[in-house]
Amino acid sequence: MTEPSPRRRGRPSRTAAQESGPGARERILEAARAMFAERGYDKTSVRGIAKAADVDAALVHHYFGTKDEVFAAAIEVSFEPATVVPAIVGGPREAIGERLARFFISVWENPATRAPLLAIIRSALTHEAAAKVLRGFVLRRLLERIAADLDVPEPKFRAELAASHMIGIAILRYVIQVEPLASADPEEIVAQVSPTLQRYLTQP
Amino acid sequence: MTEPSPRRRGRPSRTAAQESGPGARERILEAARAMFAERGYDKTSVRGIAKAADVDAALVHHYFGTKDEVFAAAIEVSFEPATVVPAIVGGPREAIGERLARFFISVWENPATRAPLLAIIRSALTHEAAAKVLRGFVLRRLLERIAADLDVPEPKFRAELAASHMIGIAILRYVIQVEPLASADPEEIVAQVSPTLQRYLTQP
Repeated sequence: MTEPSPRRRGRPSRTAAQESGPGARERILEAARAMFAERGYDKTSVRGIAKAADVDAALVHHYFGTKDEVFAAAIEVSFEPATVVPAIVGGPREAIGERLARFFISVWENPATRAPLLAIIRSALTHEAAAKVLRGFVLRRLLERIAADLDVPEPKFRAELAASHMIGIAILRYVIQVEPLASADPEEIVAQVSPTLQRYLTQP
Repeated sequence: MTEPSPRRRGRPSRTAAQESGPGARERILEAARAMFAERGYDKTSVRGIAKAADVDAALVHHYFGTKDEVFAAAIEVSFEPATVVPAIVGGPREAIGERLARFFISVWENPATRAPLLAIIRSALTHEAAAKVLRGFVLRRLLERIAADLDVPEPKFRAELAASHMIGIAILRYVIQVEPLASADPEEIVAQVSPTLQRYLTQP
């Protein structure tokens, strides 16, 4: 990813306009996701992301703003709230708990999405700046949109209770790797957790 | 705590025997708990703990063994499984979920026990050695003892599901500090979470 792209050869003076094709934004996001996952929040810089994506740092700022905003955008690539939220809150209400459990487990079971999420949680637990981003951008965008569609008292509180359970499972299963949870069949986890999430998301 | 104790004056050549009174073990544990909480697993050494407790490092090894074993012992001070487990598994079975929820919340609400627990979780999320200690010593000693008293299929799996929920709540409430969970009345959390834990710990 740090290798110069072919089109760069013989073009020493690039401008943001030349690079700002539809591919540049995706390259920046991909590089940001990889760097935050690999190095953590603290050791990742806009300059480093720009270099890995083979663009000027100015273009990263142009598309995303500050490092915190790049971080938030990189996280959203994993969550994709725009597609995830309708998939969870749509469909029959009596299976919303199971849909949410299945979504979370599938994100965590996929190494490509697990790595950046673990990096985010690690960063948020050790750096207040990363915690603030997670709190402000992601949880608000993901959980508030789920909560907006719930017909329960204190929907945000309920959505957070559901999220807390899935985050705790991820930590015990994938990070601490406590047995038998670490080796349990994902479907067994979904079966146990779905009624819990269902209650939080629907019980008056 | 790093100040030399009065009895040390004029006693340049201390021996382990001289220091190994009933207070020394407690001093070492207290120093270990404070240092692991403050500096994290990685930056805490047996030598540093010994210095803070005003004892020889040999005495720390004598009482506890390796750094990992000191870490485990320091964690146990917060959990106190010997007194906690009977308090949770004893009492009427129909309220075991509420007792577990209330115990976890009370440990987290108390800053004196919250700080070392957060340090443990942070350390375990960032250092495999600390994760191994948490996995091996603490979860096994605490969760296996709770599981041993449960009359459900896969009791360890059930106990871990319950623990995962409480760990996730702690992370969202005290570390990420997402609202409204961060400001919620502890009793409201206990009320919501108790039925979940009850189901994991008792439903066949």
